[in-house]
Amino acid sequence: MHEFELIKNYFQKLSKKSPSALNLNDDVFFDKNNKLVVSVDTYTEGNHFIDFKSPELVIKKIIRSSISDLICKGVKPKYYFISGSGNKKSFSKSNLLKISKSLNQEQNKYMILLSGGDTVFSNKLSFTITSIGFANDIVYRNKAKIDDDIYVSGNLGDSYLGLLVLKDKLKLNNRLTKYFTNQYFMPNIQLELTGQIKKFANTSIDISDGLIADLDKLINKQKLSYKLFLKDIPISSNLEKVLDFKKLPKINHVSNGDDYQVLFTASKNKTRIIKKIAFNSGVKLTKIGLIQSYVKKSCIIDDKNVKITLKNKGYFHKF
Amino acid sequence: MHEFELIKNYFQKLSKKSPSALNLNDDVFFDKNNKLVVSVDTYTEGNHFIDFKSPELVIKKIIRSSISDLICKGVKPKYYFISGSGNKKSFSKSNLLKISKSLNQEQNKYMILLSGGDTVFSNKLSFTITSIGFANDIVYRNKAKIDDDIYVSGNLGDSYLGLLVLKDKLKLNNRLTKYFTNQYFMPNIQLELTGQIKKFANTSIDISDGLIADLDKLINKQKLSYKLFLKDIPISSNLEKVLDFKKLPKINHVSNGDDYQVLFTASKNKTRIIKKIAFNSGVKLTKIGLIQSYVKKSCIIDDKNVKITLKNKGYFHKF
Repeated sequence: MHEFELIKNYFQKLSKKSPSALNLNDDVFFDKNNKLVVSVDTYTEGNHFIDFKSPELVIKKIIRSSISDLICKGVKPKYYFISGSGNKKSFSKSNLLKISKSLNQEQNKYMILLSGGDTVFSNKLSFTITSIGFANDIVYRNKAKIDDDIYVSGNLGDSYLGLLVLKDKLKLNNRLTKYFTNQYFMPNIQLELTGQIKKFANTSIDISDGLIADLDKLINKQKLSYKLFLKDIPISSNLEKVLDFKKLPKINHVSNGDDYQVLFTASKNKTRIIKKIAFNSGVKLTKIGLIQSYVKKSCIIDDKNVKITLKNKGYFHKF
Repeated sequence: MHEFELIKNYFQKLSKKSPSALNLNDDVFFDKNNKLVVSVDTYTEGNHFIDFKSPELVIKKIIRSSISDLICKGVKPKYYFISGSGNKKSFSKSNLLKISKSLNQEQNKYMILLSGGDTVFSNKLSFTITSIGFANDIVYRNKAKIDDDIYVSGNLGDSYLGLLVLKDKLKLNNRLTKYFTNQYFMPNIQLELTGQIKKFANTSIDISDGLIADLDKLINKQKLSYKLFLKDIPISSNLEKVLDFKKLPKINHVSNGDDYQVLFTASKNKTRIIKKIAFNSGVKLTKIGLIQSYVKKSCIIDDKNVKITLKNKGYFHKF
């Protein structure tokens, strides 16, 4: 069963009495009266991160993944709570020191505060992170409009290439190995966007499961479709080199998740302000497609103006 | 390493910049400006609950344990988030149905709202629950005063006896087996106290690890000690019968945790209002001892006016 089917079948009805839960169909919980925004996510070894050989890097990855949910909604994260389940080896003194140091670095980088948590014994390593912020309003999912442009922040695909390298599925030189694995563990999330995104975006989501999977989720309650242009999907010059050199297809390497970039749609009359904000904040914002009526089928157009069929739309949490 | 040593050594300094974290030395996080109260706890199979043979009961136990942290601070819980890690068997359709039904019953009983969460695959079953409420103020730990009376709500020890029965360490007739195991899974937490406790308590905690362990925690930053009277510790008539019949010592059966009753101290001049509120709300509140200067040693006095020495002060989460 896919995670969202599970949620739909068994838990959505329980959240019906709480409009703030947004039907469990958005990235966050938002209580408008109390201006409270909450995101809760669980990360397990072997699933959300490969192993715990580098605790300091795993911690950075999961903290950024958690606060990314708030950032993509235009909300500055303020507090985080971390609960770890693990064994003595995972929580050895040397690992605890690394975890603590790494949390401290993330706290300073993103101006967030450790506010509580829990540690329990378990043979299986996992972390649950609760991130909290405050906002008068958020950017919701499912608010795209026909003819909206589709944008993405930063570059896509670097993190996935890092994963391939870490899993020994791809061999690269030392410099590129370091570059891509760093992108996997320390995605370049866009804190600078939080104060700005409400000015131009109609709807938004962060890319955790993959560009196409998350675009589908972004408009899953709307009678809309999308058209994406493969050539416009932004990638780093390092990824461009690797794809060229190894003759790898771009589409297979930009839609596999863990990017933690912001995917949003905006009306055409916002083009100027988006350019201006991108320039002033130094955040790369790239137009990659458009929203269309559902009578047209969703599609991706390649460099030769041919439609691409995708076998795998990204990562789903399966049960 | 005890859990609180671990917290102290590696994480307390990270929370220093956030006064709301209360030095990670209270039951909850409290952001007074935003009136926000948060509790995060993780529950693992084999540790916080024996097994998952009765998902509907385990769910009740962990929900009550989580909101108990807010209730003992005088805060009405409003929202909860539940993250489950487990395998296909734990999250089978039949179990999901039981979990969903049980959550619905708890929602109605305690007027709380499912607000989000996460489900991930893991061989080891665990749940993390985030409970949230709003309050202008809370009752803190470490605010006891010399000569305060020590009180406890409800009865102690029933839940521990239920655990002994479930572990086949004690044989009882069907009626008593049902009574005590129900008390283990469905502790009678005191929602009615939340609006009242600020009127009389100087300091409070909920009893999760055991009467003595939690009393120690309640005043762990204060130069104070306590004197408890064993005969005054309230127990149910069922527990009284079992202790009599099996000739079991009372002290060993009232200080083992999982009670989820409220332990608090109050000035002597609050005696009347406490009696009145207990009468009006129907919540049993019993005076069991007093707070003294630290020059006297903490002690428990038995029926024959003799000091008791405790081997085991309760349950500690060890690593």
